Amino acid sequence: MKISEKTSYEAWLRYEAVENDALRANYRLRCSVIVSAEQTKVLGTAAKELAEAVQAMTGHVPDIAAIRDRQIPCVIIGVLGRGDPEIDGTAGPDADELGSEGYVLRTLKGQQGEADCIAIVGASDRGALYGAFHLIRIMQMRDSIEDLHIVEHPVNGLRMINQWDNMDGTIERGYAGKSIFYRNNGFVEDFTRIRDYARLLASTGINAITINNVNVHREETNLITAEYEQTLSKAADAFGAYGIKLFLSINFASPIAVGGLQTADPLDPAVRSWWTERASELYRAIPEFGGFLVKADSEFRPGPFTYGRDHADGANLLAEALAPHGGVVIWRCFVYNCLQDWRDRSTDRAKAAYDHFTPLDGRFADNVILQIKNGPMDFQVREPVSPLFGGLKDTNQILELQITQEYTGQQKHVCYLVPLWKEVLDFDTYAAGEGSTVARIASGALHNRSYGGLAAVSNIGDSACWTGHPLSQANLYGYGRLAWNPALSTEQITAEWIRLSLGSDPMVEDVVSGILLRSWGIYESYTSPLGVGWMVNPNHHYGPNVDGYEYSKWGTYHFADHQGIGVDRTIGTGTGYTAQYHSPQRELYDSLERCPDELLLFYHHVPYTHVLHSGKTVIQHIYDTHFEGAEAAAALLEAWQSIRGRIDEAYFELVASRLSEQREHAKEWRDVINTYFFRKSGIADRQDRLIY
Amino acid sequence: MKISEKTSYEAWLRYEAVENDALRANYRLRCSVIVSAEQTKVLGTAAKELAEAVQAMTGHVPDIAAIRDRQIPCVIIGVLGRGDPEIDGTAGPDADELGSEGYVLRTLKGQQGEADCIAIVGASDRGALYGAFHLIRIMQMRDSIEDLHIVEHPVNGLRMINQWDNMDGTIERGYAGKSIFYRNNGFVEDFTRIRDYARLLASTGINAITINNVNVHREETNLITAEYEQTLSKAADAFGAYGIKLFLSINFASPIAVGGLQTADPLDPAVRSWWTERASELYRAIPEFGGFLVKADSEFRPGPFTYGRDHADGANLLAEALAPHGGVVIWRCFVYNCLQDWRDRSTDRAKAAYDHFTPLDGRFADNVILQIKNGPMDFQVREPVSPLFGGLKDTNQILELQITQEYTGQQKHVCYLVPLWKEVLDFDTYAAGEGSTVARIASGALHNRSYGGLAAVSNIGDSACWTGHPLSQANLYGYGRLAWNPALSTEQITAEWIRLSLGSDPMVEDVVSGILLRSWGIYESYTSPLGVGWMVNPNHHYGPNVDGYEYSKWGTYHFADHQGIGVDRTIGTGTGYTAQYHSPQRELYDSLERCPDELLLFYHHVPYTHVLHSGKTVIQHIYDTHFEGAEAAAALLEAWQSIRGRIDEAYFELVASRLSEQREHAKEWRDVINTYFFRKSGIADRQDRLIY
Repeated sequence: MKISEKTSYEAWLRYEAVENDALRANYRLRCSVIVSAEQTKVLGTAAKELAEAVQAMTGHVPDIAAIRDRQIPCVIIGVLGRGDPEIDGTAGPDADELGSEGYVLRTLKGQQGEADCIAIVGASDRGALYGAFHLIRIMQMRDSIEDLHIVEHPVNGLRMINQWDNMDGTIERGYAGKSIFYRNNGFVEDFTRIRDYARLLASTGINAITINNVNVHREETNLITAEYEQTLSKAADAFGAYGIKLFLSINFASPIAVGGLQTADPLDPAVRSWWTERASELYRAIPEFGGFLVKADSEFRPGPFTYGRDHADGANLLAEALAPHGGVVIWRCFVYNCLQDWRDRSTDRAKAAYDHFTPLDGRFADNVILQIKNGPMDFQVREPVSPLFGGLKDTNQILELQITQEYTGQQKHVCYLVPLWKEVLDFDTYAAGEGSTVARIASGALHNRSYGGLAAVSNIGDSACWTGHPLSQANLYGYGRLAWNPALSTEQITAEWIRLSLGSDPMVEDVVSGILLRSWGIYESYTSPLGVGWMVNPNHHYGPNVDGYEYSKWGTYHFADHQGIGVDRTIGTGTGYTAQYHSPQRELYDSLERCPDELLLFYHHVPYTHVLHSGKTVIQHIYDTHFEGAEAAAALLEAWQSIRGRIDEAYFELVASRLSEQREHAKEWRDVINTYFFRKSGIADRQDRLIY
Repeated sequence: MKISEKTSYEAWLRYEAVENDALRANYRLRCSVIVSAEQTKVLGTAAKELAEAVQAMTGHVPDIAAIRDRQIPCVIIGVLGRGDPEIDGTAGPDADELGSEGYVLRTLKGQQGEADCIAIVGASDRGALYGAFHLIRIMQMRDSIEDLHIVEHPVNGLRMINQWDNMDGTIERGYAGKSIFYRNNGFVEDFTRIRDYARLLASTGINAITINNVNVHREETNLITAEYEQTLSKAADAFGAYGIKLFLSINFASPIAVGGLQTADPLDPAVRSWWTERASELYRAIPEFGGFLVKADSEFRPGPFTYGRDHADGANLLAEALAPHGGVVIWRCFVYNCLQDWRDRSTDRAKAAYDHFTPLDGRFADNVILQIKNGPMDFQVREPVSPLFGGLKDTNQILELQITQEYTGQQKHVCYLVPLWKEVLDFDTYAAGEGSTVARIASGALHNRSYGGLAAVSNIGDSACWTGHPLSQANLYGYGRLAWNPALSTEQITAEWIRLSLGSDPMVEDVVSGILLRSWGIYESYTSPLGVGWMVNPNHHYGPNVDGYEYSKWGTYHFADHQGIGVDRTIGTGTGYTAQYHSPQRELYDSLERCPDELLLFYHHVPYTHVLHSGKTVIQHIYDTHFEGAEAAAALLEAWQSIRGRIDEAYFELVASRLSEQREHAKEWRDVINTYFFRKSGIADRQDRLIY
């Protein structure tokens, strides 16, 4: 790595020397020694991480000791319930709030001339590691570490990352270079970068990862065989040192593809025993293995439908094999007819997940978790929340988000997704009355489920800054923080990320937070309007193409004609999709008058002259947002220019070049969309701006 | 090869045993012995080909002798002017009509009890080979070989095939499998198939071939280096045995890429001497080498523009290097701005070739030949003839056609191109008054040029039937025949191909000729209307996508809005493209009233309500042709079904499956195009048919 790339590579684990002498001396004093009585792998990581951070920020190399010298200030790292009365005593009544992964971070006042110390008390090794990263974060933020009393635990049990990496080194929907895991149909030799990735993830609280694409191709199908046991074990160790469990995406047809069986029928005894045997082998090699992620009967992937079985049969087959080892099956609900006829307006892809999975509620084994995308379609810049979240009570479920910016600018445009995710998490399904938010369903709290959490598709690759666009790091960071606690505010997460990554200059924080917080709205404004989605070039999904998917088999249509646009999903005259929501959401969306503007075209087909709540017609809204959006994109670059010299130069230039590309590409979006609708509707822009 | 694939592999060189006993006996008698006094490679090929054909059709294995036994009927093969008085005498006054590649095929009556014999007298070895294939063709057609007196010579000096094969084994715009030349960045080991291809080509009169893609990538750049001399020599031999000269497509930047120079500037002395040296080396290894084909300053290929030079500078550089060896430079005129802004309506890609090359008329060296695509755009199903054909007088030029069906159904749809090519060849440019046809310009006759001819992009690959769609063989055959003589009628060529390939059953001929002759019109009817072009999916160009290129950088737009469609290329209000034609074509195209319907939208932007000469409005024409076209496509399959059992079963099934796919895909075209225009115009179909 070149020195100039160091800042963006470090991301939010950037440890600059503390500028203020008194504060630096205080940090140095308080962290003179790190005491860790136990010698587990994860506690070792915690001590080492803290020591490295202290050294970088203060210049002092803390000793790591097993026994405390009570005359010297120190940081004690320990785990509850392992026989150390001081550790257990530190937590005290807080212990009840820690769950299995929480921690207490607390200053213990020295008695009778002894030195004060800071205790990091985890409910588990992993909890202690999170506590250590918390202490580091406080120092990165230049906050005080005197008189600490912090009690934290993650709201979600599963905080997962999905890598869509292929073993040939490519990444499906990857916009940040090649895979850091694979090359030439094998693992990379050097795991340094994998370990550095584990650090970044663990520092935000991530505790699970799948390391291969949900579309499991030929070579990847072999990952569950003996051939890869040794390398997988090495990968599991790299992540395990940071408290992250390794999962694999598997091919449902594995019994045929690698097992030599004639069938993959989930009810076939030979298939069942094959999976059982395979799971046992995997756990023998990797005792900490997490389980399987499965995309089945989806976009040409094999699944139980082939054998006349349903998804519960399929998932329970794998659950049975994993259960003896404590493993779980994560089963994706992204199932729909991807060979739809565009002429057929009765089939509605948005309805598919609900229709497939609600009838199966209660039939899944205890260690099966359904993974549900945030929207009913596919990670559009704007779509409603999937009604499946209100449709399951007796089933474990987690929320799937997409950090990689497939439909949101592909890390060439800045599009900060935390505000979008917050809207999803805060959405009230009314499944069990008011307050039945997606956050509470996903965490498992609402229905008191044994498993819950979040999963998200990673946005990293071997790009020098991990994410191609440095500002896209904020999405990865923000995802981890929200997975930890969905109640965190966007503003807090944004401020944290900026200060950790770019320092504490208030002007930098002001400018960068302004860019981030406006970015989703800006991207939406110059792309697909009013929730209708798509309008992108097929396959790669970059750049405008209004009819790109209009005559395709993918079920993603806008139905624009010379009079109007939108999809009628109402109960009375449309596809009936709105009926999948509980009241009052159902009635809200079903009503042409009350439907929120930003989702109008998702739910209703309206004339271009339809007047929005904003007071504008649909066509004028399209023109205005696209002209304004392109201007706003240009203003992002101008804003960024104002902090030149205040941050690392290489970082600055990298972002500037991306913002410059965004500015130009936003004009292309503006002109293609406006021209398309002007040519189609014949309705002139009221402001008489140039439309081609 | 499986037996069932034999028929389609043999293509038009299919030698079935003669069914009629008397005729078979007559062929056998007349071809008892083949006498070839000379032992050149090409004459050896002629004798061997004839012997094999006779054996297959009659069961008799003719002797090949050097000296004639005057008691026995025979076929004599010889070349004029090599000292054999009988050969020279046979030609007699016909000799004046033979040029350098013609032949006389004549029955010599035996004198005084001697046997009759058939003399094949070539103006050259190659002429004799063509004569032998002609005699074979007569027997394949089951015509009489008594009292022959045929005098033939090719109208065009250069009758060329361009392979767009890449050394990785792919073929650009190939729809018939992988390359027969290359695999894994090298040549194939087994040249059997290359030799068989040479036979097929030579039998139609092809005398030149480039064996690598005009887009010369990294590995292909090395073809002109010593590394490939040995293999190229082997390839040149394989083609040379059939009288076909080998050419290479070259990379204009070769002096940099393989020569290690800092520049490829055509006026740089080091560059000139590098090319001179390279050419000498090539000719030392391959004395019969033909020369270079060059795509320069076109679609991102390097060229002289980089150095502030023009195309004459670039072409003359290579001409200078090749001239001492008798080689030629073929320089493509497919030069245009492929980074156009779709918002810019003043730039017109159709004008580019004319604008680039007419100012250079007279500046090209004698051994430079410009290769000009038939239309000003790019091998659309319908476009006008390139005005460049009327714009050059003092420059050698050849016509480039595309046999591979890039925009004409990709060998999944049947689209017989001979009628299209005939229209191009017969087009009168009026460059030197009436009768200045493209055929006469391309042959060199009109301006009395030293070089002329036709080149065409091949449609073959390693598909078992060569062309993916067996009926696409007719395009390859037809091209060869038209290159030989553009005056041949479509009907004659069609009848020949059917009888040679599928036998002499009149019903088969009737049905298959009906399919072929209607196919171009049918394909046009359900695809892009009225000459406007494109409306295909980007990149691969298969299937409908009306706006597929509408907002692209490629200069291929239709400008459809809610009122109308088409490109105004008139002098008064448009791009002025029509001014590139001579009168009266200029005025014809420029006139909205007189412009032929089938090219209306190429030249004019009109409302959908504009009434065509046909009496229909543009919109009704679109609806009607698309409904009728899809029906006609379905009728092709029905027609084909009627000859089941009358031809080879495997051949029948292969065509039937393609016609079935065409039928379905034609419906997709119909519905996408009609829906697009209905949605955009809001004008209902007068017949109230289903539009989605």
